[in-house]
Amino acid sequence: MKKIGVVLSGCGVRDGSEIHEAVFALLAIDRNGAEAVCMAPNADFPETNHLTMQETGNKRNALVEAARIARGNIRDISAVQAADLDAVVLPGGFGAVKNLCDFAVKGAGATVHPEVARLLREMAAAGKPIGAICIAPAVVAMVLGKDKAPTLTIGNDAGTAAEIEKTGARHQECPVTEFVVDRANKIVSTPAYMLAHRISETYEGIDKCVKEVIALL
Amino acid sequence: MKKIGVVLSGCGVRDGSEIHEAVFALLAIDRNGAEAVCMAPNADFPETNHLTMQETGNKRNALVEAARIARGNIRDISAVQAADLDAVVLPGGFGAVKNLCDFAVKGAGATVHPEVARLLREMAAAGKPIGAICIAPAVVAMVLGKDKAPTLTIGNDAGTAAEIEKTGARHQECPVTEFVVDRANKIVSTPAYMLAHRISETYEGIDKCVKEVIALL
Repeated sequence: MKKIGVVLSGCGVRDGSEIHEAVFALLAIDRNGAEAVCMAPNADFPETNHLTMQETGNKRNALVEAARIARGNIRDISAVQAADLDAVVLPGGFGAVKNLCDFAVKGAGATVHPEVARLLREMAAAGKPIGAICIAPAVVAMVLGKDKAPTLTIGNDAGTAAEIEKTGARHQECPVTEFVVDRANKIVSTPAYMLAHRISETYEGIDKCVKEVIALL
Repeated sequence: MKKIGVVLSGCGVRDGSEIHEAVFALLAIDRNGAEAVCMAPNADFPETNHLTMQETGNKRNALVEAARIARGNIRDISAVQAADLDAVVLPGGFGAVKNLCDFAVKGAGATVHPEVARLLREMAAAGKPIGAICIAPAVVAMVLGKDKAPTLTIGNDAGTAAEIEKTGARHQECPVTEFVVDRANKIVSTPAYMLAHRISETYEGIDKCVKEVIALL
């Protein structure tokens, strides 16, 4: 069975992985006959109360919180190599641009978590597909933009697209229920909640994106 | 647009709502042209670390954590009346039987959170459909078992079924991708992760269960 890594960053749109996006990625992987390998960085982050949308001043841990989405079946990303995987998918949520890297604060000047950067470089070097959902294409651009100039989408937000293009990546506009595929680099991306007003739009785009990732194997 | 209440109990299978089940309920509601009205009790619960599966000794709040699944669009259940809803759905997870009631500890002798009990009684009195997923049929049995003797399912766990039947409810075995419908009481239930080994099985059962809830409107 093909193994598809799922890089999580916590559990909740404001300080971790966007939950709907992560669950739809896991569903699409299973429905396409592959096995999800959930992982997250063992890193603390500032907690946001999702009722008030305010930071609380407390910390949570990305690996411990992401374990909620993975029902406990999750690994520290530092223990995962590209050799363990056939492809990798990154759901969105602010965690992708606050915990996997600091693009949310620094834009194109962001630093990527070293283990996330290592795994993405390994996957690209091995010619293995990468799927990126919502804002997660920014992480891919930070790691691979300069060397690979990948084409990807975060929907149609001009400011975010401009920051992404500063890395060397090319941004292509895309409707919420579709995806952009860069066949040369085997990178597939879909806007999800960067554009979605309805959960079913997010579902449709992610379902197609993950199917395309698996089709590239 | 029909409004379907979704009663959450936190965010994570061990101490709150089972995340996949909650997300699939929200998806099915949207795909069937209805609107989800997320709610949870404003009540603290003991936190479980989902990586170690151990209680931490800290508390979290069911409403605040459930807001992660609802992307902030959630109400305190005490502010929701049956008149605001056309139907209600309860996802599973240990939160359903630890935070909505204490069935996980006390079985048929459990006490139900007063606002959860009130809303379910109001819904039943108004003849409005109730959907219950995974272990959540135990909550419905605790509230309505004696008066309505509803037929419902939690899959095929004999011990749990026996506790549920002590309330006056009748348990019916059911495969994971199917549902049980009690047409007289308008109660629909599906086993989800009480039986599922794969996320796609959970999805299929919940999709059918929610469709049936909406068909009963």
